[in-house]
Amino acid sequence: MKISASVLGASGFAGGELLRLLSQHPAFEVVGAGAGTLAGEPVPARYPGLVLGADATFVTNEEALAREAEVVFISLPHTESMKLAEQFAGRKAVDLGGDFRLSDPGQYEKWYGTPHLAPDALGRWVYGLTEFNRTAIEEAKLVANPGCYPAASILALGPFLEAGLIEPVPIHIDAKSGVSGAGRASGEGFGFASANENTRPYRPVGHNHIPEIEEQLSAVAGGTVTVSFVPHLVPMTRGIEVTAVALATGGATAQGLQEALAARYEKETFIRVLGGDGLPETRRLTGTNFAEVAVRMDDRTGKVLLFAALDNLGKGAAGQAVQNANLIFGFDESMGLQASAVLP
Amino acid sequence: MKISASVLGASGFAGGELLRLLSQHPAFEVVGAGAGTLAGEPVPARYPGLVLGADATFVTNEEALAREAEVVFISLPHTESMKLAEQFAGRKAVDLGGDFRLSDPGQYEKWYGTPHLAPDALGRWVYGLTEFNRTAIEEAKLVANPGCYPAASILALGPFLEAGLIEPVPIHIDAKSGVSGAGRASGEGFGFASANENTRPYRPVGHNHIPEIEEQLSAVAGGTVTVSFVPHLVPMTRGIEVTAVALATGGATAQGLQEALAARYEKETFIRVLGGDGLPETRRLTGTNFAEVAVRMDDRTGKVLLFAALDNLGKGAAGQAVQNANLIFGFDESMGLQASAVLP
Amino acid sequence: MKISASVLGASGFAGGELLRLLSQHPAFEVVGAGAGTLAGEPVPARYPGLVLGADATFVTNEEALAREAEVVFISLPHTESMKLAEQFAGRKAVDLGGDFRLSDPGQYEKWYGTPHLAPDALGRWVYGLTEFNRTAIEEAKLVANPGCYPAASILALGPFLEAGLIEPVPIHIDAKSGVSGAGRASGEGFGFASANENTRPYRPVGHNHIPEIEEQLSAVAGGTVTVSFVPHLVPMTRGIEVTAVALATGGATAQGLQEALAARYEKETFIRVLGGDGLPETRRLTGTNFAEVAVRMDDRTGKVLLFAALDNLGKGAAGQAVQNANLIFGFDESMGLQASAVLP
Amino acid sequence: MKISASVLGASGFAGGELLRLLSQHPAFEVVGAGAGTLAGEPVPARYPGLVLGADATFVTNEEALAREAEVVFISLPHTESMKLAEQFAGRKAVDLGGDFRLSDPGQYEKWYGTPHLAPDALGRWVYGLTEFNRTAIEEAKLVANPGCYPAASILALGPFLEAGLIEPVPIHIDAKSGVSGAGRASGEGFGFASANENTRPYRPVGHNHIPEIEEQLSAVAGGTVTVSFVPHLVPMTRGIEVTAVALATGGATAQGLQEALAARYEKETFIRVLGGDGLPETRRLTGTNFAEVAVRMDDRTGKVLLFAALDNLGKGAAGQAVQNANLIFGFDESMGLQASAVLP
Repeated sequence: MKISASVLGASGFAGGELLRLLSQHPAFEVVGAGAGTLAGEPVPARYPGLVLGADATFVTNEEALAREAEVVFISLPHTESMKLAEQFAGRKAVDLGGDFRLSDPGQYEKWYGTPHLAPDALGRWVYGLTEFNRTAIEEAKLVANPGCYPAASILALGPFLEAGLIEPVPIHIDAKSGVSGAGRASGEGFGFASANENTRPYRPVGHNHIPEIEEQLSAVAGGTVTVSFVPHLVPMTRGIEVTAVALATGGATAQGLQEALAARYEKETFIRVLGGDGLPETRRLTGTNFAEVAVRMDDRTGKVLLFAALDNLGKGAAGQAVQNANLIFGFDESMGLQASAVLP
Repeated sequence: MKISASVLGASGFAGGELLRLLSQHPAFEVVGAGAGTLAGEPVPARYPGLVLGADATFVTNEEALAREAEVVFISLPHTESMKLAEQFAGRKAVDLGGDFRLSDPGQYEKWYGTPHLAPDALGRWVYGLTEFNRTAIEEAKLVANPGCYPAASILALGPFLEAGLIEPVPIHIDAKSGVSGAGRASGEGFGFASANENTRPYRPVGHNHIPEIEEQLSAVAGGTVTVSFVPHLVPMTRGIEVTAVALATGGATAQGLQEALAARYEKETFIRVLGGDGLPETRRLTGTNFAEVAVRMDDRTGKVLLFAALDNLGKGAAGQAVQNANLIFGFDESMGLQASAVLP
Repeated sequence: MKISASVLGASGFAGGELLRLLSQHPAFEVVGAGAGTLAGEPVPARYPGLVLGADATFVTNEEALAREAEVVFISLPHTESMKLAEQFAGRKAVDLGGDFRLSDPGQYEKWYGTPHLAPDALGRWVYGLTEFNRTAIEEAKLVANPGCYPAASILALGPFLEAGLIEPVPIHIDAKSGVSGAGRASGEGFGFASANENTRPYRPVGHNHIPEIEEQLSAVAGGTVTVSFVPHLVPMTRGIEVTAVALATGGATAQGLQEALAARYEKETFIRVLGGDGLPETRRLTGTNFAEVAVRMDDRTGKVLLFAALDNLGKGAAGQAVQNANLIFGFDESMGLQASAVLP
Repeated sequence: MKISASVLGASGFAGGELLRLLSQHPAFEVVGAGAGTLAGEPVPARYPGLVLGADATFVTNEEALAREAEVVFISLPHTESMKLAEQFAGRKAVDLGGDFRLSDPGQYEKWYGTPHLAPDALGRWVYGLTEFNRTAIEEAKLVANPGCYPAASILALGPFLEAGLIEPVPIHIDAKSGVSGAGRASGEGFGFASANENTRPYRPVGHNHIPEIEEQLSAVAGGTVTVSFVPHLVPMTRGIEVTAVALATGGATAQGLQEALAARYEKETFIRVLGGDGLPETRRLTGTNFAEVAVRMDDRTGKVLLFAALDNLGKGAAGQAVQNANLIFGFDESMGLQASAVLP
């Protein structure tokens, strides 16, 4: 008997990836694929080859919610989840959006530009980057899945802030994302003829993933971490690569950094620590829940260079959400997530 | 009567772009297209539609050099130019490689991993980023054309170091390059099936463009500038985007930075200073000699974010070389270089 | 004193390419860049680096028309040109749309699904594939520019129908187009994440370029030619490749076919006949007004295989339009169109 | 206890895909990953995340063969398999190359340009397009896996030749392939900078997949089928799309064709028959063993248009091979092959 799951926002890219992962999962079963714009349409018409079981028809998000699944995956635009906050009280859910990631509603209002509608609910949600919050997730019912950029950034920087090997200030994060990060409904700038053969930065100041990165890294560091963060759009469908730079603290060496990274993720199924000349490549992660990380000491400048790559829809969204759901239900966290990338 | 020009290394990507630009140039005429591997082959067989004049056949580089053209464009792998150093004495030449860019042969040996073979010749070459060295280029016979990454980096950072608006240390430069940057003869990692749908950093410590960036920016700043520099490969054919980060000096404001940038490039034909929400996009520069630059103040972190984009084979190589040749001969520096990008 | 030109529909891809070509043209000068959605915006804000002269601001299409330019380039969606039919009477114009390409209004209604609004005007327009209709274009005031698929198809098939070397029935045409062929305002299927890494046929029966191909080829053949035609979308921005197949008539040989092709285009500036092992490649034509053609005899099946490639926005649209305008005004038809492709 | 499998040629693209599929397969276990160039290297260093079990180290092909696995997957360049013909006698094997696909050694010599070295072995191999040869494969020990182009072509055309709904002559097949079809070790034309933004036909006469298509379709049709076949390279990593055209026989109607197609594949797990406006798209098949097919009647010309798409490394190579191996061992043929595509 599988655990029933609903997906809200199943027409979006992350929602579609959730359907794909859940359809292959040994323990979960989708009983409600919510997608307002597709309600009534058979799921395979949209996602060919995807086998969802008997009633594989999109329903409205309201209907998907009403089906009282044992776990709800929420993949809605931000501001939509918090409107439903009371409906999740007492239930099990993983929210892939930004509404429950920040503990401080004031920060939400500052960075998202709109007041938080359910500030009292914030305390019920646990931040869901498994490798940094596993125990809390295991005991949680409600998990706020990380943003794709924060996931990559924290995986790159976290081990070194934790170990005191880099200074908490200044830190700079340069991120490159495939076009699917903009979502399915996006404008001319994301048309093939505009996005192809093009690299461009966007929102270099004020991206709403910044407070999430800072809150989580500050917790890891045990002190205030402040970052600058510049995302870029590059002409590929999926993938995020993050290159971060920080100042080394006294005593940091190339070998020490490498060993710290290896030790930190030694027992982690989904984090590949690259040694030797290895550096992350997004294509090795496409369609998977894996991430690759690496570190370099730049002795000449006293800086530490940190690298992470992942699939923005995998470990950066749907894969991470399933990993969290596995933990909520006490399963092996890698259940249904072992697939390696399709190469080339 | 046009000025005769030879191109050494015409089989490479930058060499091919030189042929294209020179074939359309009102004042230059290619009399020797040197390319060892293609010697004897008609130029249009390799570059369809390109009109070079009567003897449009590739010759060896030796033959191209022997034709005693009034100007020689050298587009050879590094270490090849310096072997020919004596042959350029007293002639006019623009070298697109790295052999004559650094003033200190010790630095060359350190970063290129091989001793400089013509240290005495270094003083005869002038660094060729026009916007920062115009007077010297106008009076020069031998110009060392900038590397593609240094060109973008200096255009982004130079104005602010010059004006004292950013601190010279620490500076970090994150660069993204299209695959043509790796040259025509490149291995499996640059095959379509490997490079497509992939973003990856490479050589994050020790890239040989670093000393060039530092020497030039130090000259501009009037003091030692040290940078960390991480290049990335992104899945597009042409284009470089650079995002740099530095600490603001006291008194820097968003408006002040923008004004400084606009003022610095006010009279420059090829530098587009983007205002408002504008940020550089590589595709708007493909096939051209233009660059786009922008700046942002990140008040929260006290950092300045600096942006530049250009075509690695245009303003980052062949276009810049022609701009320099124009100056050497006293022409309008934009002659033959006015084309805008083919969009979309 | 340059000839004044207006462009209607300058916000579209073909309209933008017209602005680019005209801005570099020695004899034409844009005095009205019409684009309803962009009216009031500076042209360089949309097309960076493009120099249009004093009043380089988009106006409405009505205003562009009202400026009484000596030649009007019309790049509007089909059904829009024919509404303006009377306004072009007595003027000089090149229409890049489909409204004046078919001589029979009944055919228009059948294939475009709407009655022709200006059937009496049809006789005033001359079909504008220069290589097959030069004399008429030279004497014309109004030219109906070919569709991109017909241009490639006629260039590939025309010489052999003309020479009686292939049978007029059955002929099949398989075309592959870059995504820009769908125009700037296109839906989700043309978003980067949908169009990338994808090849797909579309409209395999009933494409409205079919009657145009048939009418023109029938004229060339001196008898009825009927074709099947299947276009495909491939993941590139620009370019069309056409592979057609026909039955050889008696006596056709590989050598004879090659000689016929070479002879037919011997004096044509813009048609490259490939010999030996050569076959067309779209990238060698991007941004240019050139086309490449080739032919093969398949002795085993008695079929002739015919190939053509061009840039859908160049020789397939804006380049061809400028070539026609050159002829209307008695200029060398290659004026302003000599640029070769930016490679790689 | 899993069935032991060796893979010869595991360094190639199809070989790597075999490793990926077998690593996820419930019943097979790789005991020898043969790859001369990689011998001694850990498999995960090449294919990150791929879990192969205890001894996951590449060995030479000789060693992989010597391990006496219960089934051998051969993914070697053509002419290599036939040299090993005797070693497969009495064993179970699936050959992904071309050496055992043609029943007539004379045809092999004609199309492959070299004499067949093991003509007597040909009769021991069964052609492995499951949907057209299931019974024979179930009883076979040695299966010659179809070429990627033949797989798509036969899936598109087979049902209609079988049903007598299209004429056996003339048939034309136009195919478009992603760049991975050229294999890992390929030259400059397959570098990113050459293959990107480019579509081009190649080998339009004489491709060695032609005799395979003709032999199989002739068997299906019960009479001689002759085809012309033109493959094209399009700028994507994976995927093949085939558009074929044939003359309708008397009585063929759009509805009849659609019904025949639907009926033919009604019970097939891996063939999706598209109805309504549906046409194949390669991206929906990437990484899977599925194919999509469609048909259109072109009443105006009396032609039938036939479409198929698949992943050249999936149903066109490794997926098909595993499907065949499943049958050889009496398993459900879809075992380990149910994954749907990663979208977008």
